[in-house]
Amino acid sequence: MSQKTIEISTESFPASEKFYVKGEVHKDVDVALRRIKLHESAGEDDVIIYDTSGAYTDNVAEVDIRKGLKKIRAQWIKARGDVEEYEGREVKPEDNGYNDANVNLNNIEVFPEVIGRTLRAKSGCNVSQMHYARKGIITPEMEYIAIRENLGRKQAVAKNSKGGDSRGASIPDFITPEFVRDEVARGRAIIPANINHPEAEPMIIGRNFLVKINTNIGNSAVTSSIEEEVEKMVWSCRWGGDTLMDLSTGNNIHNTREWIIRNCPVPVGTVPIYQALEKVDGVAEDLTWEIFKDTLIEQAEQGVDYFTIHSGVRLAHIHLTEERVTGIVSRGGSIMAKWCMSHHAENFLYTHFEEICEVMKAYDVSFSLGDGLRPGCIADANDAAQFAELETLGELTKIAWKHDIQTMIEGPGHVPMHLIQENMDKQLEVCDEAPFYTLGPLTQDIAPGYDHITSAIGAAMIGWFGTAMLCYVTPKEHLGLPNKQDVRDGVITYKIAAHAADLAKGHPGAQLRDDAISRARFDFRWEDQFNLALDPYRAREFHDETLPAAGAKVAHFCSMCGPKFCSMKISQDVRNFAKEEREKAKGMKEMAKKFNDEGGELYQKVG
Amino acid sequence: MSQKTIEISTESFPASEKFYVKGEVHKDVDVALRRIKLHESAGEDDVIIYDTSGAYTDNVAEVDIRKGLKKIRAQWIKARGDVEEYEGREVKPEDNGYNDANVNLNNIEVFPEVIGRTLRAKSGCNVSQMHYARKGIITPEMEYIAIRENLGRKQAVAKNSKGGDSRGASIPDFITPEFVRDEVARGRAIIPANINHPEAEPMIIGRNFLVKINTNIGNSAVTSSIEEEVEKMVWSCRWGGDTLMDLSTGNNIHNTREWIIRNCPVPVGTVPIYQALEKVDGVAEDLTWEIFKDTLIEQAEQGVDYFTIHSGVRLAHIHLTEERVTGIVSRGGSIMAKWCMSHHAENFLYTHFEEICEVMKAYDVSFSLGDGLRPGCIADANDAAQFAELETLGELTKIAWKHDIQTMIEGPGHVPMHLIQENMDKQLEVCDEAPFYTLGPLTQDIAPGYDHITSAIGAAMIGWFGTAMLCYVTPKEHLGLPNKQDVRDGVITYKIAAHAADLAKGHPGAQLRDDAISRARFDFRWEDQFNLALDPYRAREFHDETLPAAGAKVAHFCSMCGPKFCSMKISQDVRNFAKEEREKAKGMKEMAKKFNDEGGELYQKVG
Repeated sequence: MSQKTIEISTESFPASEKFYVKGEVHKDVDVALRRIKLHESAGEDDVIIYDTSGAYTDNVAEVDIRKGLKKIRAQWIKARGDVEEYEGREVKPEDNGYNDANVNLNNIEVFPEVIGRTLRAKSGCNVSQMHYARKGIITPEMEYIAIRENLGRKQAVAKNSKGGDSRGASIPDFITPEFVRDEVARGRAIIPANINHPEAEPMIIGRNFLVKINTNIGNSAVTSSIEEEVEKMVWSCRWGGDTLMDLSTGNNIHNTREWIIRNCPVPVGTVPIYQALEKVDGVAEDLTWEIFKDTLIEQAEQGVDYFTIHSGVRLAHIHLTEERVTGIVSRGGSIMAKWCMSHHAENFLYTHFEEICEVMKAYDVSFSLGDGLRPGCIADANDAAQFAELETLGELTKIAWKHDIQTMIEGPGHVPMHLIQENMDKQLEVCDEAPFYTLGPLTQDIAPGYDHITSAIGAAMIGWFGTAMLCYVTPKEHLGLPNKQDVRDGVITYKIAAHAADLAKGHPGAQLRDDAISRARFDFRWEDQFNLALDPYRAREFHDETLPAAGAKVAHFCSMCGPKFCSMKISQDVRNFAKEEREKAKGMKEMAKKFNDEGGELYQKVG
Repeated sequence: MSQKTIEISTESFPASEKFYVKGEVHKDVDVALRRIKLHESAGEDDVIIYDTSGAYTDNVAEVDIRKGLKKIRAQWIKARGDVEEYEGREVKPEDNGYNDANVNLNNIEVFPEVIGRTLRAKSGCNVSQMHYARKGIITPEMEYIAIRENLGRKQAVAKNSKGGDSRGASIPDFITPEFVRDEVARGRAIIPANINHPEAEPMIIGRNFLVKINTNIGNSAVTSSIEEEVEKMVWSCRWGGDTLMDLSTGNNIHNTREWIIRNCPVPVGTVPIYQALEKVDGVAEDLTWEIFKDTLIEQAEQGVDYFTIHSGVRLAHIHLTEERVTGIVSRGGSIMAKWCMSHHAENFLYTHFEEICEVMKAYDVSFSLGDGLRPGCIADANDAAQFAELETLGELTKIAWKHDIQTMIEGPGHVPMHLIQENMDKQLEVCDEAPFYTLGPLTQDIAPGYDHITSAIGAAMIGWFGTAMLCYVTPKEHLGLPNKQDVRDGVITYKIAAHAADLAKGHPGAQLRDDAISRARFDFRWEDQFNLALDPYRAREFHDETLPAAGAKVAHFCSMCGPKFCSMKISQDVRNFAKEEREKAKGMKEMAKKFNDEGGELYQKVG
């Protein structure tokens, strides 16, 4: 196979600079943010934005994927004194899918220096952020998050803020480290932060914080270089993915995951049952608790930050999907349904739930309780099967919380607009405000090829109503595997949905970037408009298609009206007019006053 | 200039056939619908869909753009006995922007046979559909619409319907011609249908009907052929545009518009002030009522079905925009604001409103009352300026209704999600349910290049809340002029928003297509999935990228899970399982019954 050269995307964004804000409680906290510089004619401060792209967009940072990212959390983790280094589980051939001798073991490079670096909680310890939070400890991770969520804001709220309707959320004007701690202790927010993924920049998922988005990647069937796999992850973080799920199947999963985690600046999630299924050659009924548990440990040692686990698919609820139009569409859900039916036994992920908690607390892996019975079409939305599972997830949340394990809940799927609120209300109620993490939802079924849009409508709404993280959908949903362009389209579309939700919730500061771009639009500062955009490259490209000349970038008109007549220009006239009117009114008032002062006679005496 | 060869898109959609349903009240009504044939393995009826593409997708129809479309309404109009043919206004050079001698008059072909075909109401007559409706007359247009809105449905509601939340709309299970009449008489719906545009297929805009979408086109600065201009219109109708606004400026507007209207199967709208402004060389203050009125008649004679008129921009309200972040962004609004300020006089479109009504009723042109003070950014949403204008539009609606003139109201613009409901409520209240026609709204400002998506979120929501027609936004919004790909993306995105709204409102029948595609998805009928999609071509293309082989189209798996494990396949197991469980339960029950029948003794006597 020929060696393709894949470049890792390391360019910084136009007119942008990465900068770092120091912690006050924890002096070794350095929070990465991005500043966008505006044209000097604006006379405005830089616009500070939340940035998920890691060191890759820091022109000063050195990137070497064979070394991995800087382990920014390593000292914080060790300083807590509750972890120990150990040899870790030996990597077995079947971890990479090498169950038969025909597989070429040499077709993938192994990440250097893995051995001897694994951490776990000391016996009897619980290293979850929730555990610390409940003990009243403000960790460096919590302070990092507080600074990050405030976007370096000095003022509490944007000057022109349209307020918001928080729909029951309690968003403070300013996020303090103590507020972060309190929300995590309450279970209303999670900080996915495996102690074996010290490279990740801390972030939080909860309804009282900025709405987050997750992206999915998977390995390629045929891969020529490890750069290609790493670049997928870098690409998704670059455009704004807050977390990343590695949904790889087939061969080389273990090795690929190692490369991804060592280089990933955001939390990584997986669905461990996928890998477990590979280990039993795809035969669901051959799955056992032992194989699954071993896979959990394998992945926890690598540093996976959250596990999707389908413990809510119960034997007694499976028949509720019988009359559905599209049955069970979740891959994990159908694996477990198959297992339950074959053994006529309760789901082993349900019966062993507390043992799973023991693994989670030793590494601080968060639960993402899977919605194995989520609806796959409008006709199946909000049905008995979905809600029965949701209630089980509520029960499991309470068990996880008993163990101080951070937990979020996965949600649908396909839901028409008028049923979205009901879905959210039910989740908030039965899961006691544990963060909701939804796939879309798609608001209809008839637009394959455009399901990023179909689902962005539902995502924006459910984000407003209280969902903490939105799992992106690409244009290839239902049709095929996304390429790089699809990933970019999917991420930007979901950044749009999340930002629309932040504005509607009245998140303080969310509107600052909107106002800055609107002023730039009004002033015809084209470069600022591009630079402030979610996707500066596409904005510029599209402008260039109609008006490619460099002169047009500073022209005080646009392609819509042209130079002859411009509606924006009229507004200066309005300002002059309003001023004149005010002065005239003032003059009239003065005249009237003078008239009255002088006795109010219509004709003044002459002489 | 070299002659480019532009083909008019006349291909029918895959597996689709145009067919016609006869009227019952009016035997000469032939309603065009599209049927999508499913694979025989489905064992299902054809799926009937609403279709706006006109004769261009009818493989039997002959298309000759130099002849124009068949005048399907010509006999209906004449049969009413209230119109007369007349010479019509002579076309002047300035109608095409030829104000100076340097312009090449020969660079555009003139549509043949225009002269002597113009119709207007006989003296003292009013030919508006609202006028007929209020007299209790069910016109052929109304019956056409009733059949079209029912999508040829036999059953009232889809079997798996999720109901809906109509948010105050009163959508009947079945649309009768009488219902159409009643809604038009009430002013809650309009049928844009100029008597000089008999080529258009009747359609309705109102909150108790399917949500419609409008698309915009404009002339090219440099055009090599009339085919290019006509193709833009055909292209927009092909993908689903329900109405079309011709926003051309500059030269050849009159001629181009003639080509468009003669070949356009959907109602055409314009903003007449744009052409009037061209006639005074772009100097807003030189506009006069006489020039404007002459332009109205010019366009009414050509067959424009609705006029956007900015009568609501009042002198007294202009100063309310002074503190805005983006001032006045509507082109029409700023033209009128400039005029008012220059003359320090009330807007002549307001003072002459009843004279405008006289023109409208002579041709049945509908009002689209423009929102000249609509917000251009989140910061300016729902402000005093916007709402002051909306109240004026409410007053004007009542005046138009006094004249039996059909009227809809234009709306914003940029509105964050939490303020959309307020905007809709206010419009319903002050305009007494006259149809609302909104641009988006865009739910944020920071995504230039993706504003079709930003606005589709707002459009879907406001459509659900009661907006009757959504004006599309393309990816080029704020940046440049849309190309063909942008128009397709914009139209499909808005079809998604409108359909999501129809589902949420519980429009009976809206879900039939969703259910059909979902069953196709569950059965792995790939061809049916493509054919039932809003954009069958893109769906197929995307599938081919991952699984190009023809065999994959009939394969019982997809690229997401692959052939080894498929979640959809599990569902058959679920059905078998549920059946076994039921039989087992039944068996247990029978056993129990037998046990009780036999006396309920645990041990039966032996012998």
